[in-house]
Amino acid sequence: MKRHIVMLPGDGIGKEIMGSAKIVLQTIATEFGHQFTFAEHAIGGSAIDQFQTPLPDTTVKACEEADAILLGAVGGEKWDSLPGDQRPEKGLLGIRKALGLFANLRPIKGFLPLLHASPLKEEVIKGSDILIIRELTGGLYFGEPKGRIEKGNAVVDTLYYHRTEMERIIDKAFQSAQHRNKKLTSVDKANVLESSRFWREIVEAKRKEYPDVAVEHLLVDAAAMKLITQPNQFDVIVTENLFGDILSDEASVLTGSLGMLPSASIRTDGIGLYEPVHGSAPDIAGKGIANPLGMILSAALMLRHSFDMHEEPDEIERAVQTSLDQGYYTADLAIEDGIVVSTKEMTDIVIGNL
Amino acid sequence: MKRHIVMLPGDGIGKEIMGSAKIVLQTIATEFGHQFTFAEHAIGGSAIDQFQTPLPDTTVKACEEADAILLGAVGGEKWDSLPGDQRPEKGLLGIRKALGLFANLRPIKGFLPLLHASPLKEEVIKGSDILIIRELTGGLYFGEPKGRIEKGNAVVDTLYYHRTEMERIIDKAFQSAQHRNKKLTSVDKANVLESSRFWREIVEAKRKEYPDVAVEHLLVDAAAMKLITQPNQFDVIVTENLFGDILSDEASVLTGSLGMLPSASIRTDGIGLYEPVHGSAPDIAGKGIANPLGMILSAALMLRHSFDMHEEPDEIERAVQTSLDQGYYTADLAIEDGIVVSTKEMTDIVIGNL
Ligand SMILES: CC(C)[C@H](C(=O)O)[C@@H](O)C(=O)O
Ligand SMILES: CC(C)[C@H](C(=O)O)[C@@H](O)C(=O)O
Repeated sequence: MKRHIVMLPGDGIGKEIMGSAKIVLQTIATEFGHQFTFAEHAIGGSAIDQFQTPLPDTTVKACEEADAILLGAVGGEKWDSLPGDQRPEKGLLGIRKALGLFANLRPIKGFLPLLHASPLKEEVIKGSDILIIRELTGGLYFGEPKGRIEKGNAVVDTLYYHRTEMERIIDKAFQSAQHRNKKLTSVDKANVLESSRFWREIVEAKRKEYPDVAVEHLLVDAAAMKLITQPNQFDVIVTENLFGDILSDEASVLTGSLGMLPSASIRTDGIGLYEPVHGSAPDIAGKGIANPLGMILSAALMLRHSFDMHEEPDEIERAVQTSLDQGYYTADLAIEDGIVVSTKEMTDIVIGNL
Repeated sequence: MKRHIVMLPGDGIGKEIMGSAKIVLQTIATEFGHQFTFAEHAIGGSAIDQFQTPLPDTTVKACEEADAILLGAVGGEKWDSLPGDQRPEKGLLGIRKALGLFANLRPIKGFLPLLHASPLKEEVIKGSDILIIRELTGGLYFGEPKGRIEKGNAVVDTLYYHRTEMERIIDKAFQSAQHRNKKLTSVDKANVLESSRFWREIVEAKRKEYPDVAVEHLLVDAAAMKLITQPNQFDVIVTENLFGDILSDEASVLTGSLGMLPSASIRTDGIGLYEPVHGSAPDIAGKGIANPLGMILSAALMLRHSFDMHEEPDEIERAVQTSLDQGYYTADLAIEDGIVVSTKEMTDIVIGNL
C-alpha cells in the first residue's frame, strides 16, 4: 500500500513523540511491504511563532491532500495570553472544521501492568472497555451568534446542530457498536435542552435501522456519575461536542494510563487525524522523557481506521503491550519492579517487540 | 426564632424522607426554643397528577412567603414521556427561576465509616472537602432563542449570561472561599467559549476585591479529570450552570456517600431551597427503606444558611455522624459490621443522638 501521511508535531513534547511514531510506522512499512511517505507541517503555538497563525494555509492544504494526519499536541503557557482566535487551540479546532472531521473516537481501556495506577479501586475499573464517540464539528463550539452583546454587558454562545450533523455521528456510533459489544449509550440533557430532545428523537429513529444494538439514554450528569461508579457497564457512548469533551476527558483518567490513550478524529471517507489524548506537557518538553506510547498507539489507530489495515495495528498494539509486560515504562507511568526508560529507549523497545 | 418552612416532598421517596426532616426540625425547635411552622405543597410529578402542572401557582406563592423551602425529590419514569415543558423537572427549574435562587451550593465531604464505599482508592479520596458553587438561573438552560429552526431540520439552544448574573455568583464563591480554605477554582471553557472568556475576565477583576483568596482557572475538561485524580486539591469550585450540573454530579459519587449529600439553592437575602442530591428513587419508594440523612442534612444546611443558626445545624450534623459511628446505615449505604435500618429507625436514631 502507498500512503501519504502528514505529521503535525505541534508544541511541547509533540515533536519528540512524533519522531517515535514515524520510526514505528517505517518499521511496519518495511515489514509489511507498504510505502509510507511523510511530510511535516506546522500547527498550534509553533505555527504562531513561525507564521503568526496557529493554522497556516499550507498546513490545511497539505492535510487536504494527505491520506491521514498525525498530530502531536498543541498549546502551552507561552501562548496563553493571546486573544481567543490567535491561540494554539484554534489550530486544532480549525483543522477539524476545515477537513470536516466530525467523529472523535476515544477508546478507553486499561493496560494491565498499569491498572494499579488508576485512581479507582481495581474491582471498579477492571474489565472496562469503552469507546466514546464525540461529535466534533458542531454544537456550542461553533454556533452563531457568539460574543458580547448589550454594550459588552452580556454574552452569548449558540448551540446549533443540523439534523444531518446529528444523524451522521449517531450512525457512526451505531456502526461502531455493531463491531463491538452491541450496546450504545446515548448521552444528552433532554430534560432541559431542546438540542438534546432533537438528538434523542434521532437516536430513537435510527435504532430501528440497527435492531441488533441495545440502546440506553443517559443524562449527561448521570453519565458523569456512572463513568466513575460503573465504568465497566459501558460499551459505546455517543454524545455531542461539549458533553463529549468533558466526558471523554473524565473517562481518560479512569484507567491510570492517560499517557497511553490514542484518539481519532475522522470523517466518512476514512480520512482522519490521530493524536494522543494527553497534552503538550511543556514542563517536560525537550527532556527526552515523554511517553511516546499514546502517539504510537494513535498511529496504530490510523492504520486501522484510515488505511483499513488489521494485522499491522494489531502488531503495534501487541508490541506496546509486550513492552509494558516486560516492565518498561516512562516517567509518567509506574510499574512495580519495572524499569524507567526514556522516550527513545521506549521507542526502541517497542520496535524490538514488533 | 419564628420561622416558616414550606415543604415540597415531590415524588418517589421524597415524601418519606421529608417526614424525617420535619421530626428532626421539630426536635431542634423544642430543644432550642424556636417556633417552626410548616406547610406542605405540591411540585413535580405529584403536582402534575393533582393539578396538571409541575409547578402550581399556589406552590410558587407559598414559597415566596416562606423563610425557607425544603424539597424532597422530583421525577420518575411515570412522567418521562410528557413533553418537555410539562415534565416534573420543570417544577424544579421553575421554582429556582421564580424565586431567583441563583447559587447552588454542593458541599462534598466523605463520612468516615462510609468512605470504604467510595469507587476511589482511599489514598485518593481521603481528606477531600469540596464546595461546588454552581450558577443556577442562567446559561444554556434558559437562554433564548431555543427550539427547532429551518423547518424542523435544525435546533438551537442559547447560552446567555448577563454580567450581573456572573458577578453575583462569583462574589458568592469568593465569600464562601474566605470562610473556608481560601482557595477558589474557577471552571470554564475559555479556550473555546465567548461566555467563558467573559466569565474569566470577571473572576480576574473580582479577585482584587478578595486578595486573601488564591484563584486558579481550570478548563472544564481538565476539572472533570482532576476531580477524580486529585479531589483533595480543591476547596471551593465555582462555575456556570451546565458545567456545574455535570461536575457537581460527578463529584457527588466520589465519596461513596451520595445518599448523604445535601444541597442548597439560595439568593442574596438568605431565602433558599434545600434538597438532597440523590433523586426520587421510584424503585424503592413506599418501602420505608430510603436514606433520610441527605434530607436531614439539607435541613441542617437550611438552618445555617437561611436562618443563620450555628449550634443547631452543628448538632444535627454531629447526630448524623454519631449514628453512622454507631454502625447504623440504610440499604443504600454499607458499613462493615453495621446494622441496616429503615427510614423511620434511622430517623429515630438520629433524634436519639440529638
Ligand atoms: C483544545 C480544545 C479546543 C479541545 C476541545 O475542547 O475540543 C481539546 O480539549 C480536545 O478535547 O481536543
Ligand atoms: C432535573 C434537572 C433539570 C436538574 C438540573 O440539571 O439542574 C438536576 O439535574 C439538578 O442538578 O438539580
